[in-house]
Amino acid sequence: MSGDLPLSPLAPKGFPSLPAVKGLRLATSATGIKYKGRDDLLICELVEGTTVAGTFTKSKTSSAAVDWCKKALSGGEARGLIVNSGNANAFTGKAGDKTVETCIESVADQIACRPSRVFAASTGVIGEKLPAEKITGHLSDAWSRLADANSKTWALAANAIMTTDTFAKGAGQRLQIAGCDVNIAGIAKGSGMIAPDMATMLAFIFTDAAIPAPILQELLSQAVDKSFNAITVDSDTSTSDTVLLMATGTVEGQPKISSFDTPDLLAFKIALQEVLISLAQQIVRDGEGATKFITVTVEGAEHDLAARRIGLAIANSPLVKTAISGEDANWGRIVMAVGKSGEIVDRDTLSIGIGGHTVARNGVAVDGYDEAPIAAHMKNDAIGIFVDIGLGDGQSTVWTCDLSHAYISINADYRS
Amino acid sequence: MSGDLPLSPLAPKGFPSLPAVKGLRLATSATGIKYKGRDDLLICELVEGTTVAGTFTKSKTSSAAVDWCKKALSGGEARGLIVNSGNANAFTGKAGDKTVETCIESVADQIACRPSRVFAASTGVIGEKLPAEKITGHLSDAWSRLADANSKTWALAANAIMTTDTFAKGAGQRLQIAGCDVNIAGIAKGSGMIAPDMATMLAFIFTDAAIPAPILQELLSQAVDKSFNAITVDSDTSTSDTVLLMATGTVEGQPKISSFDTPDLLAFKIALQEVLISLAQQIVRDGEGATKFITVTVEGAEHDLAARRIGLAIANSPLVKTAISGEDANWGRIVMAVGKSGEIVDRDTLSIGIGGHTVARNGVAVDGYDEAPIAAHMKNDAIGIFVDIGLGDGQSTVWTCDLSHAYISINADYRS
Repeated sequence: MSGDLPLSPLAPKGFPSLPAVKGLRLATSATGIKYKGRDDLLICELVEGTTVAGTFTKSKTSSAAVDWCKKALSGGEARGLIVNSGNANAFTGKAGDKTVETCIESVADQIACRPSRVFAASTGVIGEKLPAEKITGHLSDAWSRLADANSKTWALAANAIMTTDTFAKGAGQRLQIAGCDVNIAGIAKGSGMIAPDMATMLAFIFTDAAIPAPILQELLSQAVDKSFNAITVDSDTSTSDTVLLMATGTVEGQPKISSFDTPDLLAFKIALQEVLISLAQQIVRDGEGATKFITVTVEGAEHDLAARRIGLAIANSPLVKTAISGEDANWGRIVMAVGKSGEIVDRDTLSIGIGGHTVARNGVAVDGYDEAPIAAHMKNDAIGIFVDIGLGDGQSTVWTCDLSHAYISINADYRS
Repeated sequence: MSGDLPLSPLAPKGFPSLPAVKGLRLATSATGIKYKGRDDLLICELVEGTTVAGTFTKSKTSSAAVDWCKKALSGGEARGLIVNSGNANAFTGKAGDKTVETCIESVADQIACRPSRVFAASTGVIGEKLPAEKITGHLSDAWSRLADANSKTWALAANAIMTTDTFAKGAGQRLQIAGCDVNIAGIAKGSGMIAPDMATMLAFIFTDAAIPAPILQELLSQAVDKSFNAITVDSDTSTSDTVLLMATGTVEGQPKISSFDTPDLLAFKIALQEVLISLAQQIVRDGEGATKFITVTVEGAEHDLAARRIGLAIANSPLVKTAISGEDANWGRIVMAVGKSGEIVDRDTLSIGIGGHTVARNGVAVDGYDEAPIAAHMKNDAIGIFVDIGLGDGQSTVWTCDLSHAYISINADYRS
C-alpha cells in the first residue's frame, strides 16, 4: 500500500541501522496475495534453544494466527516465524485455522522442528480467505535465500510486513549483560486500527541474549505496557495485534539469567524499553493521516491506571484530535475528555497545560490567560498536553496523532 | 453557527408542528454572548404544580448548570427554565457556579418562586467565562414577551438553543390518558460531542399531563435509555448533557396517576418514547459532517447491556464510520469492532448482515458471497447493520452517523 500513500510528514529521516542478531536468519518474498511488485512475506529461522515471549490482541475476534501463537507460546521456545501482509486471515472460520496450520507445518518441515515451535502473524484485510498454497508455494524458494540479518535485510523485512504504513519501522540497541555484548533489533508495522490492548499491530524483536522464556515474558510484558499499550491512533483494536520477542541465546560467555530482578538485566530492561517505545512511537508517527505527534502526560490521578485511562480518553477524543489538526488551542475539549474518562476527577483541583504553558489551574482558566504562546505551539508538529488531576500519585504518558482529512481519505477508500 | 454550515443532507423536510402545552409560556432573546443576529436565550415559565424529571451527563467535568439542575431536581417541581447557547459555562470554576446562581435568582424573582424551582442549561464553548449580566440584562425584556407555545414559538425556541446544529429539532405527540387529551412537545439540540452517558446534549420535553415527579423520573429514565443513550456521533461526551421533562398537570379531569405500572400510562409511555427517539435520531441526522444515518442492531448477545456495548463499539469505530462514508462494504471492520467491545463473543456463532443481506454466518463469509447488493445498499443515505452474536437473548439498537471530511472541517475550525 505504501506506494499509494504519501510519506507521513512525521516520518523519521530513514530506516535505522539495526545490529545483526546471531542465531537468526531471515528472508522475504513476494507472494502476490494482495500487493503487486513488492515483498509481502517474511520468514525467520531461529537457532535451537531460542526462547520466546509474546503479547497479543485482546480482541474477541482475534485472527487465526493470533490464536495459534497464544497456544504455541506455552512451550516458551521458537525456531521459526512466518508473517504475511495484505490479508489478516481473520474471521475466516475453520478454513482460516487450517491455513495457519498448513503454513506452520510447511515451515516446521523446512526447519525440521515441531510445529509448536513456529509462530505466525498475518495483517491486512479482515474476512477474506487466505489460501495456504499462496504462501506455501513460496516457502522453499524463500528458504533457499535465508541469510543473517544485516542493515539491508532488516529494512527488507520491515518493508515486507507493511500494509497502510508509509515507512518501514525499526529500532535497535547494543548493550552489555554482565560484560558481554548483546544486541536487540526490532521491526514493527502499524498505521490504522491502532488502539492499545495488550499489544498493537505487529512487532518482532530479536536479541542474541540468553534469557529463559518466563523471564523474557516478564520483560516483554513490562515494556509493552509502557510502549505499545501507551499509543493510540484511532481507538480501533486490531484482530491481529502481535508482539513477539525472541532470544537466540547465542552470546558467548553470557552468564545464565535466573531471575527477573538480577542487576545483570538492568541495562537490557532499559534498552528493550527504548526499542519498544521507539517502535511504538514510529507507529504513531505513521498514524493514518497524521500531521502532529501528540504526547499526553497525566499526573496526579488516583493511580497509574486511572492516569492511563484519562490519557487515552484525551488521545482518543475525535474533538481533541481534530482541534489539534486544525492547530486550534481549544483546551475546553481536553476538559471534556478528562470528564468522560470515568475516572475520579475534581474540577477544582484539575490543571491543564499545553506546550509547557499552563492554561487552566484548579478548575478555571489562569488569570490573564494569553493564547498567543499556545497558538504558536499548536503550529509545531510535536504537541505536548499536560494534565494534573491534583488528587493522587498516578501518572502515565500516552502518545497519539491528530485526526485529519487524510485519515478520512485513507479509510473511506482503503479496501475498495 | 447554523448560518456558517450547510444544512445536513439528512435533515428532515422541516420543523414539525408541535402541540401547545397548557401551563407553559416561553420566549427567546438575542444576548449576543457569542452569536450575532440570532436568538441564543430561551426562557420558560411553568405553572404552579409542574413536576419535573431529568437525566444529566455522567461527565466528571460537568457544567455549572448541570451541577445546579442535579441539586434542584430533588424538589421534583419546576417553575422556570433558562437556556443559553454559545457558551457552556463549563470549567469556569466558582465564578461559573456564581453565574448560574445569579441567573437562576433573576428568573425566580420574575416568577416569584423559590430558586430551587428554576432549572438552567448552557451549551457552547467550554472554559470561557460567562458573565451573568450578559443574560440577566435581557431577562425583563424577554419576560414581557412570554407567550403560550405554538407552532411558531416552538420553532423559535428550538432555534435559540442551537450551536453547531444545522437544523432545529422538535417532536410532539397527542395522546389520551384515561380518556383525557394530553400533549407532549419536545425540542433538542446536538450535533457534535455526542456520546450517550445518561443523556446527550440538551433536550426539553413538556407535557400537560399530571404525573408525580417520581413516576415522571421513571418514565424519563426508561425512555432516555432507548433514545438518547442509544445514539452516538463521535464518542465524545459533553459536559453539558441535560434532558428535562416537565409536566404542567393542566389537563382537565385527568385522573391522578399513582403508579408507574398503571394501564392509564401505557399510551403516554409509548408516545414519550417516540418523542425522545425522534429527537435523538434528529441529533444523529445533524451529526457533524453526517452523510449517512446508520442503524446498528445487535441480537443474540449475553444480555441487553452487552448488546448495547457491542452496538456502540461498532457505532463509535472510526474505521467503520469512514468505510460507510466512503460507501465501502468493508464488513471486516464490523468484525473488528465487535471483537474490541470487550463483550463475550464466539467467532463461530457470529453472523453479520448489511442492508438486509447476510454477509457472514457463523464466523465466516457466506458461501458465494456477492458484494453487489451490499455495495448498492451502501449508496443509500440510511444504512442498516445487523449483528447476531448467537449466544444469548440480549438485544439493542443504536443509531449513529458516518465520519466524513466535513466532520474534520467543522471541528478543526469550530472555535477559532
